[in-house]
Amino acid sequence: MSAPSIDVTTADRETLAALHADLQADYDRLVDRGLRLDLTRGKPSSAQLSLSDPLLSLPGEGDFTAKDGTDCRNYGGLAGIEEIRELWGQIFDIPTDQVLEAGNSSLALMHDCLTNFVLNGTGAGATPWGQVEGGVAVLCPVPGYDRHFTILEGLGIRMINVPMTATGPDMEVVASLVAGDASIRGIWGMPSYSNPTGVSYTTDVARRLAEMPTAADDFRILWDNAYAVHHLTEAEPRVPDILTLTAEAGHPDRAVVFGSTSKITTAGSGMSFFGGSPANVAWMQKFLSRRTIGPDKLNELRHFRFLPDHLHVQELMRRHREIIAPKFARVLEILDERLTGTGTAVWTTPTGGYFISLDVLPNTASRVVALAKGAGVALTPAGATFPYGRDPQDRNIRIAPTFPSPDDVATATEALTLCVLLAATEQRLAAA
Amino acid sequence: MSAPSIDVTTADRETLAALHADLQADYDRLVDRGLRLDLTRGKPSSAQLSLSDPLLSLPGEGDFTAKDGTDCRNYGGLAGIEEIRELWGQIFDIPTDQVLEAGNSSLALMHDCLTNFVLNGTGAGATPWGQVEGGVAVLCPVPGYDRHFTILEGLGIRMINVPMTATGPDMEVVASLVAGDASIRGIWGMPSYSNPTGVSYTTDVARRLAEMPTAADDFRILWDNAYAVHHLTEAEPRVPDILTLTAEAGHPDRAVVFGSTSKITTAGSGMSFFGGSPANVAWMQKFLSRRTIGPDKLNELRHFRFLPDHLHVQELMRRHREIIAPKFARVLEILDERLTGTGTAVWTTPTGGYFISLDVLPNTASRVVALAKGAGVALTPAGATFPYGRDPQDRNIRIAPTFPSPDDVATATEALTLCVLLAATEQRLAAA
Repeated sequence: MSAPSIDVTTADRETLAALHADLQADYDRLVDRGLRLDLTRGKPSSAQLSLSDPLLSLPGEGDFTAKDGTDCRNYGGLAGIEEIRELWGQIFDIPTDQVLEAGNSSLALMHDCLTNFVLNGTGAGATPWGQVEGGVAVLCPVPGYDRHFTILEGLGIRMINVPMTATGPDMEVVASLVAGDASIRGIWGMPSYSNPTGVSYTTDVARRLAEMPTAADDFRILWDNAYAVHHLTEAEPRVPDILTLTAEAGHPDRAVVFGSTSKITTAGSGMSFFGGSPANVAWMQKFLSRRTIGPDKLNELRHFRFLPDHLHVQELMRRHREIIAPKFARVLEILDERLTGTGTAVWTTPTGGYFISLDVLPNTASRVVALAKGAGVALTPAGATFPYGRDPQDRNIRIAPTFPSPDDVATATEALTLCVLLAATEQRLAAA
Repeated sequence: MSAPSIDVTTADRETLAALHADLQADYDRLVDRGLRLDLTRGKPSSAQLSLSDPLLSLPGEGDFTAKDGTDCRNYGGLAGIEEIRELWGQIFDIPTDQVLEAGNSSLALMHDCLTNFVLNGTGAGATPWGQVEGGVAVLCPVPGYDRHFTILEGLGIRMINVPMTATGPDMEVVASLVAGDASIRGIWGMPSYSNPTGVSYTTDVARRLAEMPTAADDFRILWDNAYAVHHLTEAEPRVPDILTLTAEAGHPDRAVVFGSTSKITTAGSGMSFFGGSPANVAWMQKFLSRRTIGPDKLNELRHFRFLPDHLHVQELMRRHREIIAPKFARVLEILDERLTGTGTAVWTTPTGGYFISLDVLPNTASRVVALAKGAGVALTPAGATFPYGRDPQDRNIRIAPTFPSPDDVATATEALTLCVLLAATEQRLAAA
């Protein structure tokens, strides 16, 4: 396959037809190769996971006592052990007594937090969201993370799309919506290297979220700090400190913060965190206490032995970067080689996180994903990055380069670019 | 302090007054000793936890692959790894594909299962319990486990007391209630060594629960198999197999089963299990999938390396028994020495589990707990073993002998018996 030097959006019919014939022939050869590749999974690779293999024999026999004397093998300690709250509070910019460690999945904490909003309300005297006449809604910056949307859909919470910009959600749209509609009770936010756009919120955006007037008096910023330390470059910016910003703005309870070590140590055997104002932490603990006697404190101790301070975490994340940054670079290189100048796609150049967001010609994303599937390359379903699985422009595709080998990433991306061009050419021919 | 040989309930006023003076003097001396003892906690002791210390360095570096090739360090596998489902399915009498491993707390699974009943209903087409006009109720055999009741109270589910007998809940009462009232949607059950009575359900009781006609067509038996292998004697009976019984009775979806390793390996760092019919397992997985990407598979592997088969589990539980059976024996010995013949109390003689249930004279349990507190001995609050914390007869006290040292257990029990006698004598004098 060779790169076309043709802008598909402006080419004449004859040029398009010739290009299409070439691309179709390339595609047929691709199908014949019988690939089995996967660009769907925002998962660490085996090489990344091996960085944390010391965890597999930690804390070690005889080592089960936390700093304060707690026997980590026994029940109790709903908030997690002090040293782990302190360290990860520092990493997530949360005071120790405003952070809880609770389980292996921050998604589960988000799910449970929202479930409690629905069943019990956001705090003393607040109407449970599930009892609000006409229902409630949450703003969803798009494209975004499908599992955020699944939680809301499962709870019957209406979702309203808000466009992402290069600095965070479009704050003109957000401010206008929340000021005028009391049924809007929250907004999702991934402040650092958003899934899938890679956008990091500026402090200005975070401040506007903290300060903006909202018609609902229990408005909540759902701050999913999933990629706080997941830098792809040597710039290692801090995430805007939403808890301080909301407190300064006189809305101390507006933000709830979530984070985890899933893509720092192991995925599924790590720790997850909840942070918030003192009132929100007390609120969360009240509901946690109905559900469980405490988190896995041995896993906390295991992690603390492996990563005893911020410098160890930083060093580990740099080793992750050494493994995954070249994969991102390879994808971007191929996208540039094959698609620049064709008019068929634009994409993000993330400086952190796990994804590249590719926007193809409107109404071709589903076709691209189907073509790729036909050639043995699995892509995240078109629409998955939007609420209800509906991309109104059928345009966005999420690329996850971390899990496959570098060679597989390259082969899959080459295949993907061919499918983008073929789908675009098909569409232009049909329209011509 | 000496044991009275007097039946407090029949003694005359003069005898009671003399006895009371003696007991009060004993109590004053007890207070002077400044004890700090605790009989509240159904927790394993340090010696018990040490039995599982090999877990602290497992699975070991290089060991992270499940039988089917799954990398346990990565995301995925919502149901848990095959080998852990197979082994613990055998222990809990559940076919492998009908058991899920999910997290460190079976209480959390019960909480989430009930939350889903409330929000989403028990299955396709079922009305969510939270939308049933007039609300729903669940039967609670009493005395029972306070955390069961807390979950129901938090979800706004009405609780109805049902008396426990020596073979399980009073099935005449249960059958009559569920047949006539469609708002009654479930019953708690701890089939083996119930908390706190130690009662094990007979197969006949389990069969009647499985077979009984219920006005509600989505009636659920909440089968908390917390003490399935926690024998205190050499008799090691199997728990009635409720899933087979309900299937045979034509009610395959009636029972949901919960279990954990919290009091087998470590408390809080173990595994928890959900079991049910294929429909119930699919139902649970649907909601689990909204909440999490999967359980801690490394912890599953860790446990499988330590306890690879049923015989290892059995052997471990016998070592637990060697540690805790003497504590139970000592409590029972002291209760017998000090209280038999006094008319002030009856108690259970459990053959497994974690508790002894003590019934004192009606309307004295709160006083006993207060007196014990005054003497530095913490007891579970009176009423805790009943829904809403209300023991209608103010009579039941739960004794948890496993956690303290044998000497502390003995000292605390001696103090407790003194408080029982003193409270009884006070009451009789006041009534005389």
